[in-house]
Amino acid sequence: MSEIKKVVLAYSGGLDTSVILKWLQDTYQCEVVTFTADIGQGEELEPARRKAQQFGIQQIFIEDLREEFVRDFVYPMFRANTIYEGEYLLGTSIARPLIAKRQIEIARQVGAEAVSHGATGKGNDQVRFELGYYALEPNIKVIAPWREWDLLSREKLLAYAESHGIPVEMKHKNGGSPYSMDANLLHISYEGKGLEDPAREPEADMWRWTVAPEVAPDQPQYLELNFEKGDAVSLNGVTMTPAVLLAELNRIGGQHGIGRLDLVENRFVGMKSRGCYETPGGTILLKAHRAIESLTLDREVAHLKDDLMPRYAALIYNGYWWSPERRALQTLIDHTQQTVNGWVRLKLYKGTVMVVGRESRTDSLFDPTIATFEDDGGAYQQSDAAGFIRLNALRMRIAARLQRKE
Amino acid sequence: MSEIKKVVLAYSGGLDTSVILKWLQDTYQCEVVTFTADIGQGEELEPARRKAQQFGIQQIFIEDLREEFVRDFVYPMFRANTIYEGEYLLGTSIARPLIAKRQIEIARQVGAEAVSHGATGKGNDQVRFELGYYALEPNIKVIAPWREWDLLSREKLLAYAESHGIPVEMKHKNGGSPYSMDANLLHISYEGKGLEDPAREPEADMWRWTVAPEVAPDQPQYLELNFEKGDAVSLNGVTMTPAVLLAELNRIGGQHGIGRLDLVENRFVGMKSRGCYETPGGTILLKAHRAIESLTLDREVAHLKDDLMPRYAALIYNGYWWSPERRALQTLIDHTQQTVNGWVRLKLYKGTVMVVGRESRTDSLFDPTIATFEDDGGAYQQSDAAGFIRLNALRMRIAARLQRKE
Amino acid sequence: MSEIKKVVLAYSGGLDTSVILKWLQDTYQCEVVTFTADIGQGEELEPARRKAQQFGIQQIFIEDLREEFVRDFVYPMFRANTIYEGEYLLGTSIARPLIAKRQIEIARQVGAEAVSHGATGKGNDQVRFELGYYALEPNIKVIAPWREWDLLSREKLLAYAESHGIPVEMKHKNGGSPYSMDANLLHISYEGKGLEDPAREPEADMWRWTVAPEVAPDQPQYLELNFEKGDAVSLNGVTMTPAVLLAELNRIGGQHGIGRLDLVENRFVGMKSRGCYETPGGTILLKAHRAIESLTLDREVAHLKDDLMPRYAALIYNGYWWSPERRALQTLIDHTQQTVNGWVRLKLYKGTVMVVGRESRTDSLFDPTIATFEDDGGAYQQSDAAGFIRLNALRMRIAARLQRKE
Amino acid sequence: MSEIKKVVLAYSGGLDTSVILKWLQDTYQCEVVTFTADIGQGEELEPARRKAQQFGIQQIFIEDLREEFVRDFVYPMFRANTIYEGEYLLGTSIARPLIAKRQIEIARQVGAEAVSHGATGKGNDQVRFELGYYALEPNIKVIAPWREWDLLSREKLLAYAESHGIPVEMKHKNGGSPYSMDANLLHISYEGKGLEDPAREPEADMWRWTVAPEVAPDQPQYLELNFEKGDAVSLNGVTMTPAVLLAELNRIGGQHGIGRLDLVENRFVGMKSRGCYETPGGTILLKAHRAIESLTLDREVAHLKDDLMPRYAALIYNGYWWSPERRALQTLIDHTQQTVNGWVRLKLYKGTVMVVGRESRTDSLFDPTIATFEDDGGAYQQSDAAGFIRLNALRMRIAARLQRKE
Repeated sequence: MSEIKKVVLAYSGGLDTSVILKWLQDTYQCEVVTFTADIGQGEELEPARRKAQQFGIQQIFIEDLREEFVRDFVYPMFRANTIYEGEYLLGTSIARPLIAKRQIEIARQVGAEAVSHGATGKGNDQVRFELGYYALEPNIKVIAPWREWDLLSREKLLAYAESHGIPVEMKHKNGGSPYSMDANLLHISYEGKGLEDPAREPEADMWRWTVAPEVAPDQPQYLELNFEKGDAVSLNGVTMTPAVLLAELNRIGGQHGIGRLDLVENRFVGMKSRGCYETPGGTILLKAHRAIESLTLDREVAHLKDDLMPRYAALIYNGYWWSPERRALQTLIDHTQQTVNGWVRLKLYKGTVMVVGRESRTDSLFDPTIATFEDDGGAYQQSDAAGFIRLNALRMRIAARLQRKE
Repeated sequence: MSEIKKVVLAYSGGLDTSVILKWLQDTYQCEVVTFTADIGQGEELEPARRKAQQFGIQQIFIEDLREEFVRDFVYPMFRANTIYEGEYLLGTSIARPLIAKRQIEIARQVGAEAVSHGATGKGNDQVRFELGYYALEPNIKVIAPWREWDLLSREKLLAYAESHGIPVEMKHKNGGSPYSMDANLLHISYEGKGLEDPAREPEADMWRWTVAPEVAPDQPQYLELNFEKGDAVSLNGVTMTPAVLLAELNRIGGQHGIGRLDLVENRFVGMKSRGCYETPGGTILLKAHRAIESLTLDREVAHLKDDLMPRYAALIYNGYWWSPERRALQTLIDHTQQTVNGWVRLKLYKGTVMVVGRESRTDSLFDPTIATFEDDGGAYQQSDAAGFIRLNALRMRIAARLQRKE
Repeated sequence: MSEIKKVVLAYSGGLDTSVILKWLQDTYQCEVVTFTADIGQGEELEPARRKAQQFGIQQIFIEDLREEFVRDFVYPMFRANTIYEGEYLLGTSIARPLIAKRQIEIARQVGAEAVSHGATGKGNDQVRFELGYYALEPNIKVIAPWREWDLLSREKLLAYAESHGIPVEMKHKNGGSPYSMDANLLHISYEGKGLEDPAREPEADMWRWTVAPEVAPDQPQYLELNFEKGDAVSLNGVTMTPAVLLAELNRIGGQHGIGRLDLVENRFVGMKSRGCYETPGGTILLKAHRAIESLTLDREVAHLKDDLMPRYAALIYNGYWWSPERRALQTLIDHTQQTVNGWVRLKLYKGTVMVVGRESRTDSLFDPTIATFEDDGGAYQQSDAAGFIRLNALRMRIAARLQRKE
Repeated sequence: MSEIKKVVLAYSGGLDTSVILKWLQDTYQCEVVTFTADIGQGEELEPARRKAQQFGIQQIFIEDLREEFVRDFVYPMFRANTIYEGEYLLGTSIARPLIAKRQIEIARQVGAEAVSHGATGKGNDQVRFELGYYALEPNIKVIAPWREWDLLSREKLLAYAESHGIPVEMKHKNGGSPYSMDANLLHISYEGKGLEDPAREPEADMWRWTVAPEVAPDQPQYLELNFEKGDAVSLNGVTMTPAVLLAELNRIGGQHGIGRLDLVENRFVGMKSRGCYETPGGTILLKAHRAIESLTLDREVAHLKDDLMPRYAALIYNGYWWSPERRALQTLIDHTQQTVNGWVRLKLYKGTVMVVGRESRTDSLFDPTIATFEDDGGAYQQSDAAGFIRLNALRMRIAARLQRKE
């Protein structure tokens, strides 16, 4: 282990990564550089600086990455209407590539040979971090303490903390939250403890970002989103940056109890796990994006995107954001979004999001003169359909004739 | 046209197909056999018999196909978690193949050379009917009056009716419903008139099967669905036939404002159209089926199904139910459902359906001893993940090394 | 028909399109503009000019499109390793979009309301021409004489020609070639007559571009192709334009009996047909392109391309070159070709093409220090494979444990 | 390591697995059971028995699995027209699942806790063996000596052999074959040594199963294969079992220099490697199977199979034969083969295989009355094509109109 002199740690300031910080110093006898990012998790970052200083850290990176996160990761993903396994909006998955990228950039800047993270050896996040590291810096050393050390239970971790002078907050002493949580501008997730029985409903007080639909306002709220090239650019007529817009959608969606999800998912490492998620803004955004695409995207392009979407979603879920195949797919997806311009009106009410109107003044492929059930003045020749059907049926008729002979 | 002596007409008893009946008699000088099916559209069938008799029809077929419809068409489709274009549950599409099949069977029974239907030349239904006819009876003659006659406006149709002694109900004289509607046990749909502007919200009194979420009960309702081989077999512990179960889900879902949908879709004949749908039972069923699959289906099997689903959905939407490729896909889908056994608990509330629990005593692949964040006693070796990640990263590392050399 | 004053005809100068020319003049009473293109069919074009003049044509377009054809159509298609139904290199399909495009451009230039072609109503070519016309000029009128007139047998056609003073060459009077042929720089095709029985071997004297392998040289020939961004740019060290290179490959491949194909294919209009093809240069090019990709393309990118290829091939076969979905796929395909640089050495011998070497000095992802079976000095940790396998097996182990319990 | 009392070793009798045998005895102090299978590799098995006896092995399994191999593995794979990365017929990949299955069955029979194999830690075969083991017996222990020991060079291996009294044949002392080879009834493969430079042509004397095309007979040979439900059942009118038929095709194909392949492939473990293959019988079989399918398979079914094939091929290449997703795909593939009945005639000549005829008396979907270019007496209405094209073009026309407005 002598070769590692400096390691860049993805540091939240919480108990786990504080223990890791200390453990790295002790085990690897190396300098630790901390990197703490604001990606909208809703926690103050300055405490992380103070704690790092207490460990004698010399190089402390604290950065606000919220705009980059939404603009370069969340928005591109939503252009594909991405959903994993029919339900999950990939809130955790999409944040890891950004962290990995910045960690590698910092490692280069400070001359570190290694990077480290606090993800466990059972989950997807270790894969997402490390595939990113390796793809961007092929010779980087990766230290994944959860796979190396023997602090595999919470008791051992607390004991280590106490014996090494790491301040443990009261909530941890009392057991802390019963859930393992992760949050960023796109979502907050819950795993572990009571959720480990998929037959049991989560407790009502678990949810943090959204109110229960039952206590949401009795009045529905309408909102209007404007899209340019597939990206939401304004809300109710007010132009906003991506991060501001998503934050605002989270706020409004949360008020209306929108975006709760309770599911069993398949991890890349081979097991099923149960997770709960709140994605208020993302739930609204997905619905709206599909609606504006329904008006502005050619049918076969839309179907091509639908056919490729599960694959694209699995790539992101599995941590392949920085892979050449994800980039190739993104090229196709982005190409299709040039015409995805217009507005969508939505109605929010007690957990539901309903599209109630959509329009594209520049790119609508909806042609009322053809679609109408009324007389269309010859825009569409109904007799064409006879030949269309007969030729589409031809191969089946030939087969049926053969069967009848037999 | 002299070769057609007998034609089997899909006859609803309504104004349009009554005009068609008369028009067939007059234009083709042939005997018309009527076929009226109960597929859960919620209308009485006996009036159709009386009307047919008034036209002098000798052979009148009136049949209750509700169980066959749900068992052999709706349920197989739901095994694939079928959604068209991300939203539409294919309520209309799935009913046509059954009608087509029975019409052909009746044509054989009565010795008819032709079949006829009341679908227009602009829509998908003509394709669905006729692809079915041709696939099942390759030499059948198809008469599609809407593509042949000149009654292309409602005024002309009413004039024809009046001048030919076809009783026109008051509602038609007054313009009738402003929407073109279609209903069966899976859904009711609305098209046309005010909906032809996709920017406008549908009027509140359009919806017929569901209450508005705003007036749904203030108390959520829980229900439990039991699945066997991918099909729902009991509700809240009561075993039900497919049609009874779906009807009950419709009733309950409708009370809670579940399953409304407003969208712009791409028709097979090449245009976009706007439609609104109510699919209360289907919306619940889809959610529940995904949930039981999440527990009992292997990850890669589930992803294979997800990858194929849009193609399967397009086949059904486009009318290829009776095609060999749909059957081939169905073989795969059905094969995967052997282990899809267990129950799902759902919570319904003001338009929302939330899965709150799922269990499979016989087929759950969720292994809590492995999934746990707690100490698992060695069931899973965390160190395995290092090699897993490194080999998955290898190709990207090789590429990155090459790029750095350049 | 009065609205058509001018029509642009795709005119080969042969008997069929000469009859069409006359028929258009007579039937539509309109001015005909002829368009004759050299796409490498190997026939002189000046006779077409003289014939057109004999019909009194005022505007005659004769153009050499060979470079554009290979550069903008053949090469992009080969970047995808395109094969239809496992065998067919799409030689006819890929030429039609170019003809359609130029015809429309000429129609705009001369102010014609209509275009016309000589493809029959049973084949794919009518679809390929007309989808191109409509996609590029949505309001164009299309005249497809074979679907309109009654000259459906060769006898009637000849009779029409004679009675209208159209010179019929001796070969036609004698029945001419027993095959319907089509040629361009990519291939020559044969259909019809003796080929209509798929059980019978084509006659030896049918083939025109390649010698029989039996009479090819007894000495193999090696050649080397250089690729830049996926396109062949030089042959045996000599830089060539696309059309020159493909012509040279045709010449060499033809000498060695390479690229004969005899197959039954599925037409877009719903029937199976039997065709024979000679594609000497294309056969070499495809093999070489795959070889250089095997060295320079990431595995998952290559697999993504392979997964999409049949769909891309069907799009081109069916005439959707100018569709938005083909363009979207092309964007992805082209994006992947940036690293496809290097040379491939091939051995040609009596109908076989064998890759015997390939190298990319700039973009090879083949890493001999890792691939070696010898000691690699730690470049690859064999122990990583254990974890890789165990996690990849995990879901199957969980399932197997469940099965054993039952 | 004390828990392993008995291990079943896949034992070829060669030097490597003999060293492994001894190493297992010494390292694990356990009883070794040897399993040697004839899958058509063309080597005598009795020497393996004698060698095993010399090591004191008590339980020796020697089995002829050739028929099972071809019937249950090769044939099902060929029903899908399986090719990996456009070229490779998967000869090695398809044999591993059978070995794994028998090894597990023997382990159960003899009460062994572990299985072992001689595949290295860099290749695909370790994955194929072990995914099979784990899928069939989830709690099996796997010993992969190449990943555990330190005998990583040939010199060390030979030294170990000599010092442990393992007889080393002269060929090994002299360096033996310069290639790593693997053979079974489907193919023989070559890797390593001189092949590790993909730019260099393999030496002429490497190839063992096929003559060079240059020295193949000057007379072509015709042969006829009969298929039932997608499987070849007779050759030139003689009914044969699968293994006998494939062996005979190998013999004939080998004489004509058919089935040589030189490629760079992407291994599942993340690296590219260069391999050479001889698959004479398989090359003929694939060509013939596609030909009989071209006549008997519906177009859309054929395209569905083509779309899924690369995925199916990757599953087999990567070792997922025993996975639920491979089984699900197989269900679909097998379902499609019911109509794949008939004969194919092929011409073999100096490395080429050409289909020259195909016929299915019971299931041909080729309808000459429709396909003909001659007058078809109305079987196909050419005018139908106009409507077919116009509706297929409609979405593109609408888009083009929109673009022109802008």
